[in-house]
Amino acid sequence: MTHRISVELATTKRPKPDVSKIGFGSCFTDHMFMMDYDADKGWHSPQILPYQPIMMDPAAKVFHYGQTIFEGLKAYRTADGRILLFRPQQNLKRLNRSNERMSIPDVDEELALEALRQLVLVDQDWIPREEGTSLYIRPYVFATEPLLGVAPSRQYKFMIIMSPVGSYYAEGIHPVRIHVESEYVRAVAGGVGQAKTAGNYAAGLKAQEKASEQGYSQVLWLDGVHRKYIEEVGSMNVFFRIGDKVVTPELNGSILAGITRDSVIQMLGSWGVEVEQRRLSIEELFEAQEQGRLVEAFGTGTAAVISPVGELNWENRKIIIGEGRTGELSARLYNELTGIQRGELADPFGWVLELKGTVSATS
Amino acid sequence: MTHRISVELATTKRPKPDVSKIGFGSCFTDHMFMMDYDADKGWHSPQILPYQPIMMDPAAKVFHYGQTIFEGLKAYRTADGRILLFRPQQNLKRLNRSNERMSIPDVDEELALEALRQLVLVDQDWIPREEGTSLYIRPYVFATEPLLGVAPSRQYKFMIIMSPVGSYYAEGIHPVRIHVESEYVRAVAGGVGQAKTAGNYAAGLKAQEKASEQGYSQVLWLDGVHRKYIEEVGSMNVFFRIGDKVVTPELNGSILAGITRDSVIQMLGSWGVEVEQRRLSIEELFEAQEQGRLVEAFGTGTAAVISPVGELNWENRKIIIGEGRTGELSARLYNELTGIQRGELADPFGWVLELKGTVSATS
Ligand SMILES: Cc1ncc(COP(=O)(O)O)c(C=O)c1O
Ligand SMILES: Cc1ncc(COP(=O)(O)O)c(C=O)c1O
Repeated sequence: MTHRISVELATTKRPKPDVSKIGFGSCFTDHMFMMDYDADKGWHSPQILPYQPIMMDPAAKVFHYGQTIFEGLKAYRTADGRILLFRPQQNLKRLNRSNERMSIPDVDEELALEALRQLVLVDQDWIPREEGTSLYIRPYVFATEPLLGVAPSRQYKFMIIMSPVGSYYAEGIHPVRIHVESEYVRAVAGGVGQAKTAGNYAAGLKAQEKASEQGYSQVLWLDGVHRKYIEEVGSMNVFFRIGDKVVTPELNGSILAGITRDSVIQMLGSWGVEVEQRRLSIEELFEAQEQGRLVEAFGTGTAAVISPVGELNWENRKIIIGEGRTGELSARLYNELTGIQRGELADPFGWVLELKGTVSATS
Repeated sequence: MTHRISVELATTKRPKPDVSKIGFGSCFTDHMFMMDYDADKGWHSPQILPYQPIMMDPAAKVFHYGQTIFEGLKAYRTADGRILLFRPQQNLKRLNRSNERMSIPDVDEELALEALRQLVLVDQDWIPREEGTSLYIRPYVFATEPLLGVAPSRQYKFMIIMSPVGSYYAEGIHPVRIHVESEYVRAVAGGVGQAKTAGNYAAGLKAQEKASEQGYSQVLWLDGVHRKYIEEVGSMNVFFRIGDKVVTPELNGSILAGITRDSVIQMLGSWGVEVEQRRLSIEELFEAQEQGRLVEAFGTGTAAVISPVGELNWENRKIIIGEGRTGELSARLYNELTGIQRGELADPFGWVLELKGTVSATS
């Protein structure tokens, strides 16, 4: 099935940045994808057009009631020039799960995948080639109806924008120091923590500022009910190697079901490493450390892939994990995952999708 | 101190709507207020200009990470033609409390009040005169920096738009039927429930849809930790008259500190009615009802002022309060409050602010 996405190409192309010098998500490609929704017509007018400002009514619901969701994935350029996406279908499934939770109408996943494909192909010169770099892709949906009543919007935009990103580990993979937050809460069961919706990120800013002031780069959230079970870190899920098992918080309704998390669980399983998905209290973790059983810890997410955790600080108790060095599993997972993502290693799980073809302007 | 707000007047004016026929917040006045913030310059360029779409970069942070807050208040036209605002300084204080929680820079409250004043005066023909009508005013701030990193924005817009609204009680004040939500949660202590931020409203949509399907007009939220203490209703705080006392949930960090709530507490106090601000469980309420001690219930908020509650449905247990009729205190509070707001009754608390003068275009 072909989807009729109209394509208008940019007449001038912007210079490509030096990806080693730009921050995350600060520079955008020449084109973007946009599709509109009206309650009467459904989703309509899918189009690729030059990256440009959009006109918004000041009363658009997104500004007032935050009805919006997003996704994040990456396109990679292989050494032999092919273009790969990593499990994009999973991102689109999650996009619709987020939509469902936020009362936003479903997006056709097949059409969305085709939009991703065409947009990446149109801007394929923007996929950086240097080791560790990639093209970050941001699909998102937001409410545009100009109406101040608190009710689901009758109009939306689905957009995709893309940004070349440098290596997360320009100076080599190195463990992060993390602040365990006991005052602020990100999300609670029954809320929207499992949806990739804007409000969850705004809700986390204050604790993140507090952590930075204290010299920590990230926040580890605890659950909002007992204030003791481990949830997730900023934009990552977390894993702990305790004794001969790996433990990660279960999908309890308040954390995001990370696609890297799922990939890590599958990969560890294929290596014969037992992974427990369960409630894990911060006390249990500190105890395991005292008993010498906390071997390593790492975060998982699209941006960093695997981010080893070298230190945790919880109410002025500090633990150094694995002597502050990158653990064995972290390193192996990082190498295997990025190897598959860049087409350098076999893909036994069928995770990568190669994008082929060219896209030309419709008339 | 005069603030230099530049003023550009609309060359054509839109026809005024029939307020008896329009829904809440669907029609906007001829002008809007806008002011920009940059990390380098601070807040700058305050201006009143014709109501119009704004240009937004698709990467603007508000779309992705929801850093935004808002306020809501009303301007009233008195029978003798004066223009009154109700406690606008309280809205501006709360605006800055919300800003603080969401890591948004403070707005100068004096300048914001002057902006409110000039904007209302410019569009004063839009304040409807019919009984029960008013001009709804929506100040709001949102993050505009085009950057996908999760961190406080370095650019914002502060805007004010206004919408004439019809009478909430066109067919006379009548009690609402409310669904008590036990599955979904709006906010939890440590989160952002006490801030008037977009994400809280998006988070509430799903439960609201569920309530509507079951024939209820509003959702009463329970706390996210114990799932038993009463929080608030949609866009209202709640009060219960139990025996000879009035009880309302305390400001516990997860509910909004409503300005109508505060006004009601002061007014009841001045009448010699004891008001308790404390934790109140839904069980206690149902018990009080069984014992015949639950005399009346009402919500308080800018939109409805006082909204009597005639029925509560909690896990298939239903209670009818005050025989489903408007209670004595509800009626008296409604009359006194709206009387003060419309300048028909004396204002012993110094709550109303009269706006005077005219505003002309700057050049
Ligand atoms: C809150 C949160 N948790 C976890 C993740 C990791 O998810 P994924 O592995 O799909 O990138 C992300 C980032 O997407 C996130 O925003
Ligand atoms: C969540 C919430 N609670 C309570 C209120 C009532 O507050 P106020 O009386 O200031 O309008 C509102 C509306 O502003 C609200 O949005």
